Amino acid sequence: MWFFTLIMNAFLGYLNEKNRSLFTDYYELTMCAAYYDNQNFEPATFDLFIRRLPQNRSYFLFAGLEEALNYLQTIKFTGEQLAYLKKQGFRADFLKYLKNFRFTGEVWAIPEGTIAFPNEPLLRITAPIIEAQLIETFLLNSINLQTMIATKASRVVQAAQGKAIIEFGLRREPGIDAGMKVARSSYIAGCQGTSNVLAGMTYGIPVFGTMAHSFIMAYPKEIEAFRAFSKTFPDKSTLLIDTYDDTAGAEKAAVVAKELAAEGFCLGGVRLDSGDLAETSRKIRVMLDNQGLDYVKIFASGDLDEYKVTELLEKTAPIDSFGVGTKMGTSADQPYLDVIYKLCETQNADKSFSPIMKLSKDKNTLPGRKQVYRFRNGDGSFKKDKITLADESADGEAMLVKVMDKGKLTYSLPSLNEIRSFATKNLAQLPQKYKTLANTPSYPVELSVQLQNLMKMLKIEIAKKESIEPV
Amino acid sequence: MWFFTLIMNAFLGYLNEKNRSLFTDYYELTMCAAYYDNQNFEPATFDLFIRRLPQNRSYFLFAGLEEALNYLQTIKFTGEQLAYLKKQGFRADFLKYLKNFRFTGEVWAIPEGTIAFPNEPLLRITAPIIEAQLIETFLLNSINLQTMIATKASRVVQAAQGKAIIEFGLRREPGIDAGMKVARSSYIAGCQGTSNVLAGMTYGIPVFGTMAHSFIMAYPKEIEAFRAFSKTFPDKSTLLIDTYDDTAGAEKAAVVAKELAAEGFCLGGVRLDSGDLAETSRKIRVMLDNQGLDYVKIFASGDLDEYKVTELLEKTAPIDSFGVGTKMGTSADQPYLDVIYKLCETQNADKSFSPIMKLSKDKNTLPGRKQVYRFRNGDGSFKKDKITLADESADGEAMLVKVMDKGKLTYSLPSLNEIRSFATKNLAQLPQKYKTLANTPSYPVELSVQLQNLMKMLKIEIAKKESIEPV
Repeated sequence: MWFFTLIMNAFLGYLNEKNRSLFTDYYELTMCAAYYDNQNFEPATFDLFIRRLPQNRSYFLFAGLEEALNYLQTIKFTGEQLAYLKKQGFRADFLKYLKNFRFTGEVWAIPEGTIAFPNEPLLRITAPIIEAQLIETFLLNSINLQTMIATKASRVVQAAQGKAIIEFGLRREPGIDAGMKVARSSYIAGCQGTSNVLAGMTYGIPVFGTMAHSFIMAYPKEIEAFRAFSKTFPDKSTLLIDTYDDTAGAEKAAVVAKELAAEGFCLGGVRLDSGDLAETSRKIRVMLDNQGLDYVKIFASGDLDEYKVTELLEKTAPIDSFGVGTKMGTSADQPYLDVIYKLCETQNADKSFSPIMKLSKDKNTLPGRKQVYRFRNGDGSFKKDKITLADESADGEAMLVKVMDKGKLTYSLPSLNEIRSFATKNLAQLPQKYKTLANTPSYPVELSVQLQNLMKMLKIEIAKKESIEPV
Repeated sequence: MWFFTLIMNAFLGYLNEKNRSLFTDYYELTMCAAYYDNQNFEPATFDLFIRRLPQNRSYFLFAGLEEALNYLQTIKFTGEQLAYLKKQGFRADFLKYLKNFRFTGEVWAIPEGTIAFPNEPLLRITAPIIEAQLIETFLLNSINLQTMIATKASRVVQAAQGKAIIEFGLRREPGIDAGMKVARSSYIAGCQGTSNVLAGMTYGIPVFGTMAHSFIMAYPKEIEAFRAFSKTFPDKSTLLIDTYDDTAGAEKAAVVAKELAAEGFCLGGVRLDSGDLAETSRKIRVMLDNQGLDYVKIFASGDLDEYKVTELLEKTAPIDSFGVGTKMGTSADQPYLDVIYKLCETQNADKSFSPIMKLSKDKNTLPGRKQVYRFRNGDGSFKKDKITLADESADGEAMLVKVMDKGKLTYSLPSLNEIRSFATKNLAQLPQKYKTLANTPSYPVELSVQLQNLMKMLKIEIAKKESIEPV
């Protein structure tokens, strides 16, 4: 069946590493073709950064560096891809250039799990401009999703005040890659685990799950479903109790818990997925405790996010852990970041570098090769950041570290658990006032005097060069 | 370098077809293990549907069937996966069952490109319950993203009133798979093309692109950048004119257009990416026309969606086509659908089927195996739908068609262009009043009398069975 073969190929074809070179906006290739024609191979520097904080966010938790570095080490063009580009009208000499394309640049980045703020370079890439341009789209796509989710998940984890958050959103996360990256990014942010089994296998993240309403309904009576499930998992079942009536369901779970106890097993917990979670959990906690079942945990899910978790804890709901799905896994209130990739310097004929700045009403970029320094209070908590030119010295800790040189990795990638620990430490060192869910003050990010002076000078130069008035 | 090998494996490992069986919520596997222990292999039927319309949506444009069917034909478990599951505590007999697992069920679905409404089954799956349960997460993940984007993009296309929409969102779409599915789904919805080159190659979608601000800034003067680019693409360049000042940029583009014309070439267009697009496009149109450059098109981009496109056309902005990115590619105002997968019948010991209904305050499901009929007005436009039991007959057109039998495809998958044409026809047949951007009336979806009677009966039965009051 030809159509079957076709769709198999389509699927297998696009989701693998060798195809990532064409996972790009067409304009990257047209610009590169023009650079090639004009024999422009001079180095240039680009910053990848986030222009502004979305509403109700006060920081970013950076994630995605590992994939970005993997991409930069492996990007190349296959024969099939070059044949496709030929059909699109690209010229033979440029295609020959692409055939031998490898990324040969230098990359500086902040480690995954670092807290970052608007306008701070997250990655800084110096490479022949044709290379540095070609990699834009993939890097943005990769960092956008992972940093967005790590940031969102860190808010949910903070809201839970030490109670466990399990990432439960796979079914409504936007696609396969998102399903994997959400599990990884939310684990970095402090979630205890995920429902995504493939993420468990791939990344070593603990996996969790209970049962669906369909399982209950597949049995003539609710209690029969509970018994059937706990027969298979006698020591770690969490029974879903709200298919028909949550209180009646909890009573049946208590019966099964006592049956298990008689055989030497402990029921793990009960799960609530609907209704007034605060009120119901309180009622059920009392009922379970009165029957000597204080070891049975209450697990809650259903349309949760950082706001609802906060509300439940403010109501002192006796919930032991939370399954948080769709709203975290899609970052529903902010489903993208304003992540951009901007040229900040080019090389001149005499090999010196010229800083570049984009001027517009409210979108000026920061020119030149830059570094970010972080300053701390006496107790180690974050005080302020300063963005400087790369060759300035400052007292704080330099945030950007060199991760690639001449296209080779020069950085020992931390394990996922190391990244997670680092993120946890970073989040602890961010003062509490910057972690509230709304009306959060701005964390101070200063520009060095040298950088400010450079910007003033460039504004005048640009205005003169392009014959417009100074902005 | 061990860490390099590790991340390569991680990347290569998860994004391929053989791994899709573990791309699932852990609870699907625990439920299946319990079904297995209880030797429950009886067939059951599940409906995949969307519970409700999100705000400002009045219909869904269904997409994602091709991938869903590909998945159902190919799902199996590898040795590595079974070893992982063993470590998670699954028992040997169940793992042996999984080793031989194939999907053997029957599937009915509405074709991709069909307009659908809440509660209408999009897929209906009848299979041994253990199989039908296992596939839930993947199907939801696949249909959610693709239907969400096709729906969103169809709104943008409708808003453009025949002017071309190009999908431009790759850089902020949530991950690799989303980047591909957004390109495909928005093309189904009527977009003219995408910026995503890999989607162009994989699906045959036309690709488009212009240039970035960085290209302009990489040259000492704007006009030098224009000349460099149009040297490479003399007959199809679209010049980005708002890097410094849009009016001054347009004047320089006009100079280059005349230089090209002197050599027998036509400048394709100019692109505006910021500012007041209506006012600027009008000013630039007049300037270009006055210089005999009426063939130079105006292309607009920058934070567009169906609302902004509508506003620009209401202001009669002389824009020829639109690049629509982030807000369409993330369905930013509604970044998930309320897509669910619910058990609707189980088989009894005597091989008869019992309809199943989930009762809750505002989430009752529709019991039994069902069909959807569509009724039309005299002019062929959609009048109303009716959801019936599968064995009822009705006058309208049956929307669900059989696509798989005994695990084999029984449906000739249409090409992407056929799906796109079908979607365009469907959208044309949906009366205009259901296509407004807000305050849209509800399209009538009735339940057949038989289905209503069944629901009444089941409510009483469930209440009796689980000892609660009728709702």
